[in-house]
Amino acid sequence: MKEEKGTLVSIVMGSDSDLPIMKEAASILTEFQIPHELFLTSAHRSPERTSLFAGRAAGRGVKIIIVGAGMAAHLAGVIASQTPLPVIGVPLDSSASPLYGFDALLSTVQMPGGIPVAAMAIGKAGAKNAALMAIRILALEDENLRGKLDVYIREMADNVEKKQQEL
Amino acid sequence: MKEEKGTLVSIVMGSDSDLPIMKEAASILTEFQIPHELFLTSAHRSPERTSLFAGRAAGRGVKIIIVGAGMAAHLAGVIASQTPLPVIGVPLDSSASPLYGFDALLSTVQMPGGIPVAAMAIGKAGAKNAALMAIRILALEDENLRGKLDVYIREMADNVEKKQQEL
Amino acid sequence: MKEEKGTLVSIVMGSDSDLPIMKEAASILTEFQIPHELFLTSAHRSPERTSLFAGRAAGRGVKIIIVGAGMAAHLAGVIASQTPLPVIGVPLDSSASPLYGFDALLSTVQMPGGIPVAAMAIGKAGAKNAALMAIRILALEDENLRGKLDVYIREMADNVEKKQQEL
Amino acid sequence: MKEEKGTLVSIVMGSDSDLPIMKEAASILTEFQIPHELFLTSAHRSPERTSLFAGRAAGRGVKIIIVGAGMAAHLAGVIASQTPLPVIGVPLDSSASPLYGFDALLSTVQMPGGIPVAAMAIGKAGAKNAALMAIRILALEDENLRGKLDVYIREMADNVEKKQQEL
Amino acid sequence: MKEEKGTLVSIVMGSDSDLPIMKEAASILTEFQIPHELFLTSAHRSPERTSLFAGRAAGRGVKIIIVGAGMAAHLAGVIASQTPLPVIGVPLDSSASPLYGFDALLSTVQMPGGIPVAAMAIGKAGAKNAALMAIRILALEDENLRGKLDVYIREMADNVEKKQQEL
Amino acid sequence: MKEEKGTLVSIVMGSDSDLPIMKEAASILTEFQIPHELFLTSAHRSPERTSLFAGRAAGRGVKIIIVGAGMAAHLAGVIASQTPLPVIGVPLDSSASPLYGFDALLSTVQMPGGIPVAAMAIGKAGAKNAALMAIRILALEDENLRGKLDVYIREMADNVEKKQQEL
Amino acid sequence: MKEEKGTLVSIVMGSDSDLPIMKEAASILTEFQIPHELFLTSAHRSPERTSLFAGRAAGRGVKIIIVGAGMAAHLAGVIASQTPLPVIGVPLDSSASPLYGFDALLSTVQMPGGIPVAAMAIGKAGAKNAALMAIRILALEDENLRGKLDVYIREMADNVEKKQQEL
Amino acid sequence: MKEEKGTLVSIVMGSDSDLPIMKEAASILTEFQIPHELFLTSAHRSPERTSLFAGRAAGRGVKIIIVGAGMAAHLAGVIASQTPLPVIGVPLDSSASPLYGFDALLSTVQMPGGIPVAAMAIGKAGAKNAALMAIRILALEDENLRGKLDVYIREMADNVEKKQQEL
Repeated sequence: MKEEKGTLVSIVMGSDSDLPIMKEAASILTEFQIPHELFLTSAHRSPERTSLFAGRAAGRGVKIIIVGAGMAAHLAGVIASQTPLPVIGVPLDSSASPLYGFDALLSTVQMPGGIPVAAMAIGKAGAKNAALMAIRILALEDENLRGKLDVYIREMADNVEKKQQEL
Repeated sequence: MKEEKGTLVSIVMGSDSDLPIMKEAASILTEFQIPHELFLTSAHRSPERTSLFAGRAAGRGVKIIIVGAGMAAHLAGVIASQTPLPVIGVPLDSSASPLYGFDALLSTVQMPGGIPVAAMAIGKAGAKNAALMAIRILALEDENLRGKLDVYIREMADNVEKKQQEL
Repeated sequence: MKEEKGTLVSIVMGSDSDLPIMKEAASILTEFQIPHELFLTSAHRSPERTSLFAGRAAGRGVKIIIVGAGMAAHLAGVIASQTPLPVIGVPLDSSASPLYGFDALLSTVQMPGGIPVAAMAIGKAGAKNAALMAIRILALEDENLRGKLDVYIREMADNVEKKQQEL
Repeated sequence: MKEEKGTLVSIVMGSDSDLPIMKEAASILTEFQIPHELFLTSAHRSPERTSLFAGRAAGRGVKIIIVGAGMAAHLAGVIASQTPLPVIGVPLDSSASPLYGFDALLSTVQMPGGIPVAAMAIGKAGAKNAALMAIRILALEDENLRGKLDVYIREMADNVEKKQQEL
Repeated sequence: MKEEKGTLVSIVMGSDSDLPIMKEAASILTEFQIPHELFLTSAHRSPERTSLFAGRAAGRGVKIIIVGAGMAAHLAGVIASQTPLPVIGVPLDSSASPLYGFDALLSTVQMPGGIPVAAMAIGKAGAKNAALMAIRILALEDENLRGKLDVYIREMADNVEKKQQEL
Repeated sequence: MKEEKGTLVSIVMGSDSDLPIMKEAASILTEFQIPHELFLTSAHRSPERTSLFAGRAAGRGVKIIIVGAGMAAHLAGVIASQTPLPVIGVPLDSSASPLYGFDALLSTVQMPGGIPVAAMAIGKAGAKNAALMAIRILALEDENLRGKLDVYIREMADNVEKKQQEL
Repeated sequence: MKEEKGTLVSIVMGSDSDLPIMKEAASILTEFQIPHELFLTSAHRSPERTSLFAGRAAGRGVKIIIVGAGMAAHLAGVIASQTPLPVIGVPLDSSASPLYGFDALLSTVQMPGGIPVAAMAIGKAGAKNAALMAIRILALEDENLRGKLDVYIREMADNVEKKQQEL
Repeated sequence: MKEEKGTLVSIVMGSDSDLPIMKEAASILTEFQIPHELFLTSAHRSPERTSLFAGRAAGRGVKIIIVGAGMAAHLAGVIASQTPLPVIGVPLDSSASPLYGFDALLSTVQMPGGIPVAAMAIGKAGAKNAALMAIRILALEDENLRGKLDVYIREMADNVEKKQQEL
């Protein structure tokens, strides 16, 4: 196990080949100075490790779990079924499937009533937005973070105008 | 405008024909005694009303916005772009589109990086899960609510065993 | 729990609303006199019950597990990850999803390398074929059953000719 | 802001990475000597800029707005909801989405009744045709332009015969 | 032939079974007092009639052609290739195809570069929006019509607020 | 025009960029010594040329028309509507569309009742099979050709065994 | 077996439940006085019967084989692999599959290079067009039939004009 | 023919170009020391060879047949219809089809009731899992193999933890 103390957001992925995509989430969290960890576990290859992780997350202070998985992406749903924390799912366009992440999207978003998973877009955009969604949630009770989020949103808008000038 | 005081969760929909589905969210919130409102506005037919709503939501104490919309479902994204609050999107299988909610799903979930929307499953299951996701978020800072959520989760599991006996 | 002794094939489903479809499997197994049970458990609503079931199945003599599930159908994969037995997955066209079982199909068949699930067609045809696949497997070591299977296959062919005469 | 005087057609895009595709529209308009501008704004990252642009377009003499956007392509619909001008939408195969522009297509074309967007094909062919559709509209009241359009159409036909000879 | 004098918008459809849907376009045009006609011709069953119609439309004063067609919906493209007028295509969910209008959508929108068709949503919403797109185009040179369009747009917004009160 | 005398099979395509694929059909016809021609015409860019071609084909002795087209592939249907000859359609995966030929497939195969097009697989396999289908048709009245076809079919089977040995 | 003498077109289907759709083909052939038969055989349930049928068809004077099948529709391909005759495939929207004939369409049309199947539209339109395609082929060597086909085509066009008058 | 003695699992493929993918299955079987063979036969190009193979497999001691095929992948179904053995189908993303194996998936999994095929994921993951499914079946009656399988499953889980440390 590799669970880090003080972690607010846990970024979980099913395979180390998912790391280049899920790092998008980590780098946003770093930018906003949110303590986070990268955790590797597979719904199918390491089900016990997954259960242990999910069962302990709330107790050790984690607030939000971001899960990236490809193909028949069961990991987000499996974790959500074993924790009361909000789980954000990022469908991945796994190199092992030619279905460009579409299988992962349906496996992540079509959760039956009772156990919610918050699905993001497939791939990098989704990983980035997963972090921003976590920040929106954490900012509900953290004015300082809310201030940073407002700045971030304003800068995105300003950036569009700058890009216009460079066009 | 019809914005209710003390509202923690705002359930927004683009058309009153979406009400039968979005009531699933409302009834879960009622069950958990979360103050909520039903708000009608269309991304396309009433863009100003939508902007006003989105711009004011955080200021009047709303914490989470649940948005249901069908077809080219822009409403969740449009609101998310004008508020720092977490927005949960429910793609609807509109009777006006024969694409069974698939158009709404892609329009909701495939948000570009920067502005996140938490997508749920299409239709009733998604509306129900949107409320449960809102509750998971609110329970992060509300132990009483967290207790209710734990009971709800346990009862779902117990229910499966009861159903087995009736089989 | 409701686990029956002497069971060779366990038919598992996520919801009692799946029963009308999964009975197709049961009725084929009855026709071939294979001891079987109907077991209700949900990957998401009753994860512990699911783990207990999966972990015990091999030990109590079950040989094959047939799993029916709809939407983001994780149940077959979750069980397969916790048992060394062959697991056959039947994607269901759940009334709670407008995607006609297509979401369940991809969630069932697109298993990542390491943990196999044998996917059948969506719905009734798949449930029937799941039982026939179980029989093909059991017949590998049971000559009597193999005889019945040969008769069944011959009768299907004969039936086509009879139907021709009635045309 | 960068709004050019005398502009008849405004080509709007959500990101400067869309420029290589949307230039196809610009080059056709240049060929037909239609005054046009390239305008950068995002439905999600710069919603105010988008509203300002849409609200002012008709007043400053713009006749037609061409909008290119990828993923959950809300930009064309959001602009169409804030102007009475004809809006032509070009779904883009964004490098940030593995769904090859299919998400953008459904997000653009499946507009609910009330606010129309004229959808073109995904990508370059669509960008080119967006310009040609704008020209067909402008040619309704401009005989000179209609003459050029007739020549263009005739030359396309002649070109086919020339290509035959080179085969 | 049945071509009516003074017609500004021609509503064309491939089969009389398309009439219930395409009447949505006609009723909007009637509401805005735009002279229009209903014209029946099939790209495949009456190709000559289609060519004659397309070739004559501009000359007899028609400004915009709205085309509804289902299945392999070639009619809009075939007409667009034989007229310099703007052509608006409405993909129909033909009862003769189980593909819910998806085949018609791709056949309508994926026009190759050179000959544009303005695609609308599948079915009734698309038919209604086709008329509103025609009105946006005609309003470019008709201040009176533009006034009516502004009222129509305002009333849609007001209607949302009224519906809210009835909720 | 470039119509060759004695031609039995005409291979038509909408663009010279389709030639590398459609040559698969030509090379099979050459192998079977069937007189054929390559004809370039576009349903949309050269509609008159297309009509002329289709109207004359039967009269000048052509027996079968093979048509390759991409995107909203109207060419096969448009030709079929103007000739009583059998038309074989090959959907192409045009580089101008990111939909990998799926749009062309639906535009080709979903012909409404009355005017048939014989659709082949997308791309090279389809082009090759279009020629083989033409040969199956011509062989109905040509014993010599039928003999060659029987040899071709036998050699395909023999080839599989040879490949086995090389495995 | 039930093979009728003098048969020119054999209409084959995998199940008697396909009869209501495939009768569309039969009724067109009756209208054109083409001797035909209805033959029931399943690629999967009666493979020997299918092989026997395919192997004998050419020898007993059949010219064209029309095959209707649903789900993983292998029947047309399996027959085409065992006869040198032209085979026309009609994908059916089987009540046993919720995929509305889309599975049957891909299973029919995506034949690998070497063995062609001429795919028609899904369902009734496809069954009707299969018969018309057979007639186009037979008319190549039968002037009388060609005359009837020309009349049929002309009447379809006339019918459009009549329908216009009834509008 | 190339049928090897003592073979327990036969890996069949339609083309030698499928070998790089299907070798994944072979290498897993080698790792578990299961006697196996690679057999090349095509449902369409060598139907007799396919029938001979299927008819003889059970008699010569083969227990399980793994079949890889692309496009309209009929091979698994065709073999399953001629043997009582369990057949596992691997849909392949053939380079000859741009539909990324989706056509093969539906052609493999959507088998009608009566003749089952156990479908795996598209491509390499599916080939690997086909071997693991065969091993799960064989392990039902082979304690030694069951032991190896348990080790394999445990090592997969351990591997996840190792990868975590390298992250």
